[in-house]
Amino acid sequence: MEQRMTLITLGVADLQVSASFYGNILGWKRSPMSSENIVFFELNGIFLSLYNREALADDATVDAAGSGFKGFTLAHNLGSEAEVDNLINELRSKGVTIVKEPQKVFWGGYSSYFADPDDNLWEVAYNPFL
Amino acid sequence: MEQRMTLITLGVADLQVSASFYGNILGWKRSPMSSENIVFFELNGIFLSLYNREALADDATVDAAGSGFKGFTLAHNLGSEAEVDNLINELRSKGVTIVKEPQKVFWGGYSSYFADPDDNLWEVAYNPFL
Repeated sequence: MEQRMTLITLGVADLQVSASFYGNILGWKRSPMSSENIVFFELNGIFLSLYNREALADDATVDAAGSGFKGFTLAHNLGSEAEVDNLINELRSKGVTIVKEPQKVFWGGYSSYFADPDDNLWEVAYNPFL
Repeated sequence: MEQRMTLITLGVADLQVSASFYGNILGWKRSPMSSENIVFFELNGIFLSLYNREALADDATVDAAGSGFKGFTLAHNLGSEAEVDNLINELRSKGVTIVKEPQKVFWGGYSSYFADPDDNLWEVAYNPFL
């Protein structure tokens, strides 16, 4: 299997709410492939898509029931600790839930987390070794 | 916030099992950034990392408890229906759990799903519109 990923799909409770979060609060531009039922954002090399959670489970032929920690995180790295602080403060001012305040972490970086409307966790980090 | 993602981290029950799955069964090559506690794979533009599930929840300062559908899927698109069949058959022959057999889907594509050792769902698809 080639070492690549085409897209990650987040199963969301309310597509309008989630699409507004990524489109209006994060300020991302929807891909023209988007429709009434699925919203795509073209990132660096991959797409992020938003799709109804039950419909996503149904597509994969699995039970949609699930709760608690989802066992994955997404990360957005920045170039300095100040950039991390600035982005977190900007998101906070827009009402975004900050899960972990920016702080130095054991591996030598500086890291924080925010949550999207479905409690998907985004790490915002500065890694001085990258 | 810039429209990009640096990495996706999967919280795994057993790092050795998961690293072996991605490294030996999917045949992916680890990044030299990998260590005893975290394994990175460099994909097209982003990294996929594998990290202990409890440690990941702890890093995000959330409760690690969680079960059922995780509410996300990853996708690997290919160039034809035959390529989808071939990859799924290859993975099946290596003991991978095929969650959904390749089949035509309502949006006009051809799609299947397999699961990694932590039941993370990978769609293998052909989308004639891409």
